[in-house]
Amino acid sequence: ATKWWIGGAAQTATHSVVFAQLIVNGKRYGVKNFVVPLRDPSTFELKPGIVIGDIGAKMGRHGTDNGWIQFTHVRIPRSYMLMKHTKVSRRGDVKEPPLQQLTYGALIQGRVAMVVDSGNVAKKALTIAIRYAGIRRQFGGKPGQPETKILDYVIHQHRLMPLLAQAYAMHFTGVEVTRIYEDLMSRMETLRPGDKDLDSVLDALKEVHGTSAGLKAFCTWNCLNTIDQCRQACGGHGYSAYTGLAATYSDFAVHCTWEGDNTILTLQAGRYLIGCYRDAKAGNKQAGGVAYLNDLPSLLAKRCSAKTPEDVSTLEVISDAFLLVSANVVKKAGEDFEEGIKKGLNQEDAYEECSQARLYAAKIHSFGYLYHRFKDGVARAPAELKPILSKLCQLYGLYNIAENSGAFLQYEFFNPRQVRFQEGGGGGAGP
Amino acid sequence: ATKWWIGGAAQTATHSVVFAQLIVNGKRYGVKNFVVPLRDPSTFELKPGIVIGDIGAKMGRHGTDNGWIQFTHVRIPRSYMLMKHTKVSRRGDVKEPPLQQLTYGALIQGRVAMVVDSGNVAKKALTIAIRYAGIRRQFGGKPGQPETKILDYVIHQHRLMPLLAQAYAMHFTGVEVTRIYEDLMSRMETLRPGDKDLDSVLDALKEVHGTSAGLKAFCTWNCLNTIDQCRQACGGHGYSAYTGLAATYSDFAVHCTWEGDNTILTLQAGRYLIGCYRDAKAGNKQAGGVAYLNDLPSLLAKRCSAKTPEDVSTLEVISDAFLLVSANVVKKAGEDFEEGIKKGLNQEDAYEECSQARLYAAKIHSFGYLYHRFKDGVARAPAELKPILSKLCQLYGLYNIAENSGAFLQYEFFNPRQVRFQEGGGGGAGP
Repeated sequence: ATKWWIGGAAQTATHSVVFAQLIVNGKRYGVKNFVVPLRDPSTFELKPGIVIGDIGAKMGRHGTDNGWIQFTHVRIPRSYMLMKHTKVSRRGDVKEPPLQQLTYGALIQGRVAMVVDSGNVAKKALTIAIRYAGIRRQFGGKPGQPETKILDYVIHQHRLMPLLAQAYAMHFTGVEVTRIYEDLMSRMETLRPGDKDLDSVLDALKEVHGTSAGLKAFCTWNCLNTIDQCRQACGGHGYSAYTGLAATYSDFAVHCTWEGDNTILTLQAGRYLIGCYRDAKAGNKQAGGVAYLNDLPSLLAKRCSAKTPEDVSTLEVISDAFLLVSANVVKKAGEDFEEGIKKGLNQEDAYEECSQARLYAAKIHSFGYLYHRFKDGVARAPAELKPILSKLCQLYGLYNIAENSGAFLQYEFFNPRQVRFQEGGGGGAGP
Repeated sequence: ATKWWIGGAAQTATHSVVFAQLIVNGKRYGVKNFVVPLRDPSTFELKPGIVIGDIGAKMGRHGTDNGWIQFTHVRIPRSYMLMKHTKVSRRGDVKEPPLQQLTYGALIQGRVAMVVDSGNVAKKALTIAIRYAGIRRQFGGKPGQPETKILDYVIHQHRLMPLLAQAYAMHFTGVEVTRIYEDLMSRMETLRPGDKDLDSVLDALKEVHGTSAGLKAFCTWNCLNTIDQCRQACGGHGYSAYTGLAATYSDFAVHCTWEGDNTILTLQAGRYLIGCYRDAKAGNKQAGGVAYLNDLPSLLAKRCSAKTPEDVSTLEVISDAFLLVSANVVKKAGEDFEEGIKKGLNQEDAYEECSQARLYAAKIHSFGYLYHRFKDGVARAPAELKPILSKLCQLYGLYNIAENSGAFLQYEFFNPRQVRFQEGGGGGAGP
């Protein structure tokens, strides 16, 4: 077998960390981590049994020499195994960690980091495009006056401002999931079977695992889209390399593929949501970001009673709308799954059949999660920032409702007149 | 002034065609075309008064040496003017063409070519991604069996098949607008003021001009999106340069910017549609692709009466849905515009205020236009191709309804139950 895409492997790396089966005295203990030297650190000659090549040209990240690696009977000392969780003694005794779930940490960390990255890279792209729009003038000036700044055109504001609001949503979400992740990991360091809070910690872990799958997917997609929208908003300068946006796109694009292809991760998030839905139906209380699945009947019956454009667009109304629509799409995915089971499909095939419903449930749930973390962030913000952040949070919410107005209308929380209020002078979703 | 982005100018071109004001004996005749030699064809030395530089690195199209050009008191002989339309005699007599509109032709040709290009490039990207999906296996095999082809996963079909249907829609639309364009141009070659069919030819020209603005924008956006979706659907291989999709994206991206930034073109198409709406309201019959604006009251009152999943998804029902929703969004844009006028805005400011509604009207109108050209193409297809093309056309229609379900629900042609029928096992729009 050949492992492809190893960053730094083609020419540079002297050592690698390899995920491989631990087998001791014929018994398999699963995938563990081992430090494997690749090259002599002084001569850079390959070690015995190791063959390496360069994988060649890529879309971006030209500064990283990604390579492929083959190992043939490569031997390393026992002490090169990374033994934080599982330990192997000199005599071959294997000591496994008290909780297997501990090892999920690394997986989640990558996703959390990508949520944070998505916010940061989106901010960078938006700074370039919005500053440019503030100095670039084109057409429309009154006679004798300079031409109009493109930022002053309604349509240019529609292109960039919702994306700015979205970048803030990703920022606040990144801060929050980092905090949740760090709290959880520090608690798990010392967690033992039999601890009083074991169940609640493992539930929290499950939630972070499921939620971060959806957030990784939708935040990296959001960011990639933001970069290209910003690039297009700079016109010809966006196509020139010197805005930096073309390279930002090429470098960032891989985020949608690595550490789990985004589409596959949405399915994983959708599977988690179906699990929560069924668990709630069985009478078990859901915590955190899926608490809306408790007491579904009363949530699903809610309707927006607002009668004016102002009332239909408050942060609270938008929050209710997200919860109701999230509950509906998760319920829909759960029902599709259960229908598959009733038809006699096994669990895997039933999940497979409701793939599109899983993706959609993950999408609305993730956007709702982003909205609520933004809203929480506004509540915690210094008083002088609250007014402007509230407006931006409202814009983010309304933008999402417009982009997904089908769901918001289909589940009838809003009626068509209320959606028209929210659109105001506009005419619905963007391009 | 410096003209930027001239293809081939930086090192290669010996001659250019320059758009410049024709001024004869102090009188301005507007922008005409002139052949201007740039370099000596044997030595490649720049001609007197000409300064040229390379514009530097770009996102793609690295094989084209785009440059910038400055002219300072450059002189050319009279015979270097391109005199197909406007003629200048040796004595300085200017003979203008019988119809100024003749010169729109070149503009429209560029747009028509980009609709055709969008179809072709999308087909190329889809061929790569779909063939790959047919041989790439991953996960999910039964014990002892090979893993599952990724094309056999429901979610992978959802990723690629609607885009395939869309490529066919662009193909049939490209064929049709090319035919319309060629017919129109050959008729216009001999058109003279006073000709009996003058009005109908100029109306047709106006329609092609307005419609092609929207089609250029939405087809190039569709294609750019298709390329990147195909790239992502190839996973790591999509990020490798060797799939060719990364370069296809970088090369194609400029289509969304050149010959009119897409967003600006959607506004132009929206302005045309508002004009048609108001013209129809004033009692004048609209032809061709905007004929749905005739007899609005009866169209707007239509509701889908289908009661089964099959009946709600026929090509005819989808066609009715597009016409009704197009009429509604164009009417909305027209009303927003008229409201601006009533508030006392001048025409330009009133158009500016309803920009987002114009964009949205252009979007739905363009997608409806694509759908109907696809449907026409199916009707003309050989009998053995009709069954499969009908299905693909239906998929294209339903995909569009799902992607824009907000509009289709808001204007109440379908009710929520009918939209759920159309979604079938799925759960609404894609990612």
